[in-house]
Amino acid sequence: MDEAKKVKVIFQPSGRRGEVDVGVTLIEASRQLGVDIEALCGEKKVCGKCKVRIEEGFFEKFGVHSSRENVSEWQEEEEKFVNGAERQDGYRLGCCAKVQGDVLVFVPEESRAGKQVVSKAARDIHIDWNPAVRHYYVEVVEPTFEHPTGDFERILDELNRQYGLKDLNIDYSTLKKLPARLRDGSNRWKMTVAVWMGKEIIRVLPGKVEDCYGIAVDIGTTTVAAYFCNLRTMQVVDTVSMMNPQCKYGEDVMSRITYHMMNPGGLEKMSNDMIEGLNSLVVRACEATHPPKKKKKKKKEAAEAEAAAVEATAAVDSEASGEEAEVSNDEEVLVLKDTKEDKHYLCLNPNDVIDMTIVGNTAMHHILLKLNPEFVGLAPFPPVIHRSLDIRARDLGLRINDSAYVHVLPNEAGFVGADNVGVLISEEPYKKDEVQLIIDIGTNGELVLGNKEKLISSSCATGPALEGAQIAYGMRAAPGAIERIKIDPETHEVDYKVIGRDAWRAFSKPEEMKTKGICGSGILDLLAELYCAGIILKSGKFNKNQKSNRYRLNPDNKQPEFVIAWKEETSIGRDVVVTQKDVRQIQLGKGALYCGCKLMMRRMGIEKVDKVKIAGAFGTHVDRQKALIMGLFPDCTLDMIESVGNAAGDGARAALLNIEKRIEANWVARNVEYIELTVEKDFQQHFMEAMQIPHMRDKFPNLEGVVPPEILHQK
Amino acid sequence: MDEAKKVKVIFQPSGRRGEVDVGVTLIEASRQLGVDIEALCGEKKVCGKCKVRIEEGFFEKFGVHSSRENVSEWQEEEEKFVNGAERQDGYRLGCCAKVQGDVLVFVPEESRAGKQVVSKAARDIHIDWNPAVRHYYVEVVEPTFEHPTGDFERILDELNRQYGLKDLNIDYSTLKKLPARLRDGSNRWKMTVAVWMGKEIIRVLPGKVEDCYGIAVDIGTTTVAAYFCNLRTMQVVDTVSMMNPQCKYGEDVMSRITYHMMNPGGLEKMSNDMIEGLNSLVVRACEATHPPKKKKKKKKEAAEAEAAAVEATAAVDSEASGEEAEVSNDEEVLVLKDTKEDKHYLCLNPNDVIDMTIVGNTAMHHILLKLNPEFVGLAPFPPVIHRSLDIRARDLGLRINDSAYVHVLPNEAGFVGADNVGVLISEEPYKKDEVQLIIDIGTNGELVLGNKEKLISSSCATGPALEGAQIAYGMRAAPGAIERIKIDPETHEVDYKVIGRDAWRAFSKPEEMKTKGICGSGILDLLAELYCAGIILKSGKFNKNQKSNRYRLNPDNKQPEFVIAWKEETSIGRDVVVTQKDVRQIQLGKGALYCGCKLMMRRMGIEKVDKVKIAGAFGTHVDRQKALIMGLFPDCTLDMIESVGNAAGDGARAALLNIEKRIEANWVARNVEYIELTVEKDFQQHFMEAMQIPHMRDKFPNLEGVVPPEILHQK
Repeated sequence: MDEAKKVKVIFQPSGRRGEVDVGVTLIEASRQLGVDIEALCGEKKVCGKCKVRIEEGFFEKFGVHSSRENVSEWQEEEEKFVNGAERQDGYRLGCCAKVQGDVLVFVPEESRAGKQVVSKAARDIHIDWNPAVRHYYVEVVEPTFEHPTGDFERILDELNRQYGLKDLNIDYSTLKKLPARLRDGSNRWKMTVAVWMGKEIIRVLPGKVEDCYGIAVDIGTTTVAAYFCNLRTMQVVDTVSMMNPQCKYGEDVMSRITYHMMNPGGLEKMSNDMIEGLNSLVVRACEATHPPKKKKKKKKEAAEAEAAAVEATAAVDSEASGEEAEVSNDEEVLVLKDTKEDKHYLCLNPNDVIDMTIVGNTAMHHILLKLNPEFVGLAPFPPVIHRSLDIRARDLGLRINDSAYVHVLPNEAGFVGADNVGVLISEEPYKKDEVQLIIDIGTNGELVLGNKEKLISSSCATGPALEGAQIAYGMRAAPGAIERIKIDPETHEVDYKVIGRDAWRAFSKPEEMKTKGICGSGILDLLAELYCAGIILKSGKFNKNQKSNRYRLNPDNKQPEFVIAWKEETSIGRDVVVTQKDVRQIQLGKGALYCGCKLMMRRMGIEKVDKVKIAGAFGTHVDRQKALIMGLFPDCTLDMIESVGNAAGDGARAALLNIEKRIEANWVARNVEYIELTVEKDFQQHFMEAMQIPHMRDKFPNLEGVVPPEILHQK
Repeated sequence: MDEAKKVKVIFQPSGRRGEVDVGVTLIEASRQLGVDIEALCGEKKVCGKCKVRIEEGFFEKFGVHSSRENVSEWQEEEEKFVNGAERQDGYRLGCCAKVQGDVLVFVPEESRAGKQVVSKAARDIHIDWNPAVRHYYVEVVEPTFEHPTGDFERILDELNRQYGLKDLNIDYSTLKKLPARLRDGSNRWKMTVAVWMGKEIIRVLPGKVEDCYGIAVDIGTTTVAAYFCNLRTMQVVDTVSMMNPQCKYGEDVMSRITYHMMNPGGLEKMSNDMIEGLNSLVVRACEATHPPKKKKKKKKEAAEAEAAAVEATAAVDSEASGEEAEVSNDEEVLVLKDTKEDKHYLCLNPNDVIDMTIVGNTAMHHILLKLNPEFVGLAPFPPVIHRSLDIRARDLGLRINDSAYVHVLPNEAGFVGADNVGVLISEEPYKKDEVQLIIDIGTNGELVLGNKEKLISSSCATGPALEGAQIAYGMRAAPGAIERIKIDPETHEVDYKVIGRDAWRAFSKPEEMKTKGICGSGILDLLAELYCAGIILKSGKFNKNQKSNRYRLNPDNKQPEFVIAWKEETSIGRDVVVTQKDVRQIQLGKGALYCGCKLMMRRMGIEKVDKVKIAGAFGTHVDRQKALIMGLFPDCTLDMIESVGNAAGDGARAALLNIEKRIEANWVARNVEYIELTVEKDFQQHFMEAMQIPHMRDKFPNLEGVVPPEILHQK
């Protein structure tokens, strides 16, 4: 086969098109053409989420003869996900079918990777002020024949005399800018110097500049959140977030590690996508500090508006050009602009970002840094490095200030990464008497237990089910995803709410719902509601004794399933159901978490904890009562459970604003004892037990009346 | 005029051609097309060295209609250098004439920048072993579930346990290579670690590797020399050198500073040319460690040779592939190859260069580092920085090991740079009782005077005359340059020797000489010989009483001149002469030097020095006796004068092999007192006196009999 031959591929309904090499998979083609197709399993042909339809015929509009003959042969693995009728219709898995000629590909709505709803706001936590980068203002004397000392040495002398700073280095990139900035117009011989960690000059600016800025980043497996902070006032200027752009290479950590192992250059690709993503986040954060661009006025207002605008523009322009004239060949000087509305705009640009901290789990950490993540995925899971790293932003390809460093927080272990360290330095359990259990369930579950005496950590394979993946109609928290569910115990009728629509199903017309699937928080509701309504039993099996026509056997595989949303309520043209297999998956996740908590408590020799803190989006969205019904956490009461929001991100912010926190982070990363749960005694037995629902009914008398007695007291 | 329009330019005799923008000068065009035209003054239109001829007519071979109308109008500045006849012939200055249409340009031989003969061998000096980069070998234990510590931490633990190394960092670029190299084939868990300054890991190699390599570079205004050293054995593996590629932007420091000031982007251009030059030097040095490539054998030997070759190749190949198989995705591992001849080839490549030191005068230092050199050229001449710099090679664009640092030695002052610091740490006058006068005459003159009590330094504007520039027929030390001259005092006949030909003029046929001009060492001979033969007087004026027809008045400008080589001995079709103006230029140079020495001695309050050391090529080539006749140095005897070769380069080498020397360099750079001679009292008067020849005839009785008595005793 001629590998270099190019063929045309067009994706519908987006209409994106282009040429790709013969032999690439449809998933790869979609990536190259900027079409997002779900690839939860990282193209291991096991999730079936990338189902697409090959169209037949000549499509004049696109000038393409598309034929099912133009993709590679049917593969055995596709049988599992594409039934006979679908196959007849031209459905294929995007990871299996390779292009061999021109094709028009239709991506059904459920296969599209929607734009996820991300909300990771900054919490109001206490942080002591001690940033890594500080501004110092100096005025130096002009050189003379008697004292023709160099520019750098004259500044050093002043920094020493006025601020006691000694033995400072200067980054080469900043040194190049020094002579011009020291001789800048009216600021001649006056200079603001940004010093990193009290040892290196990383920026020089003409005149006096007080504020400087940094960004704290939390790289989650699914979402990335960044806090744009003023390093002087500690104020959060803005919070920005995005989907992890690596999602297209696989939904979870292991799929991405696999993608790296199966694809030469895969690590670089994933890393570069993240770097570019971070760069665009920085740009977005900076753009928000500029005045909004002028919009076109309607005809009527135009006349008056124009006069006003001319005036305003002239004022701004003259100010701006005045500033620019003072700064020779200078791309990066802070300008504070006042608009007519008397609003201050910081008008920052990426050069003004002078520090950055990053947390993320060990795999995200390694992939970002292009460190081979293979061994993190292989027993005994050693990371390449634990310790924190200060890497020059430019060496990473991050377009913030050229001389700035990026501080990447340390990893605890292969499966408990810098994100967990972020949680720890934010929550500081090592400073408390009370025994805390901190649970961070993102795409992976990370657990920390202990107090100032001792801390242990571990990870548990909650799997992606709790976040909506590997569930028949699971999806990310995007518009159309069911996020809340109620099931009437009497009628077994279902009410639910989807993201993007305020009204519940009961208050809507069916066609208004446009349901697509179920996301993480919906899934948590689901298990508790199914159980409380008696639809499933303690074991997780469907109750044969059902009250509604929502329960049925799937006509294809004869497996039981329960309809959550009828076809007419969805935008995918099919019923959204929960299957027996789905319930198993959710049980596996919740079992892993519960079992993990129990085994850690056993290891610590304690029967109960004083506090359960839940970090991450999971903590924010979970209904604590339903979580207790499900048996998600070990023996505790409702009031002991606290949601601590994005504590990992808060930790990154703490490390950005206080270098003591960086030291603390390195200390805690090496002093938390990591426990590999899977090699603990009786692990399997504990795990099996933990999968049952519910474990602790006796401890929750308030469930009486809520849960039917025959369910609550079943053996 | 449409600036973006392109026109064709062809240079003869090289035949190089290409398209350039309308409006660029011929010099700029020559640069873009890779043609070297002399540009001594840096295009200030004052040296006249870039004379070229615009051809007229249609040149079918090149498809070009060339016309003198196709270059810009005649400029006033050209009058001085292009006489009427030449103008008639189409001669123009390359820096004045701008292309406006297709042109064919002829570059006469004397305008071509020839490949200079450079010889800067490494001297045998004592250096204590204490390099910045050292290799350490460790074996680490495999990670287990009980101890799943990260790769980096396991290596750190071993380095601490075995070698007491603590708090090591690792460069990000090296960290990326760590996991693969730690698991490399038979060297699994065995590793050699290169540590920089006892604080940072900058290379990791599988298995045990003892030797590592570095390069010490001396960037002269005209030539660049590099010493390729084994950092373990301190042995100089090779010495490589090249012309300073910036010569095309101007011959001396001031012309290059001017080039930067007049040309936006000029600094980057000059810097990048140097970086590329250094990169090619490194490649050359490395290539010399590989076995020579096989050459084609003649027919007869072919049969036997082939059989032997197959055998040899097979042996080498199997060995090589064995090595490669052990090293996964690894571009840069040391391989020691044995050839059939039992000769060891180190087979190094630029990745094996793990350290670099650089010296150069302050302007070369600044231009290399893209630091604005403008203020170095402007009173009171402050440099951007004095202190030494450790810059990551990759940040400079230097292609040695990606994690390696380049150590750039410190500057003393605007006109006494890191090269002089190199001389000082090599000669160590600050450790001696005797008072030394150290003279480093490259393109600039740098002087140091003193002993362990006190050291002062200064620079003197010797001008480029002593090196052959700004002399009518002056040229660089390239083939065809007169390097030795003898003049018969009786007949005033001239004998001379040119570079590239062993036989003197007296033993050659005229047409064999192919003389082009006079280089630095020839010029030094010239003044002494002219004076000793009585051709010039003490004042430098030509003696009216001449014995040969070599003395004449120039028919154009009526100025006296003396023929050194007749037209038929040259390759430029004209007599090579020395003019009255030339003699003045040489006197200015020697006067500046002598006056500088005297003023420094006055400043130190001493009448005489114990030793005069002459560094640089000048020191190697100068005939000490003739230098004394000329009055180049202050009162001293022949035996007090010592040539110390390329002491600046030796200093760079010392700093490469011994980090104590780096500390010493920073100390001495700030503790030598720099004196600005031009503002010294009576400077002008001293300078005028110093221009006379000879100053010290009474002190050299041995000149009796050599120099005619009427000359020796003239007032």
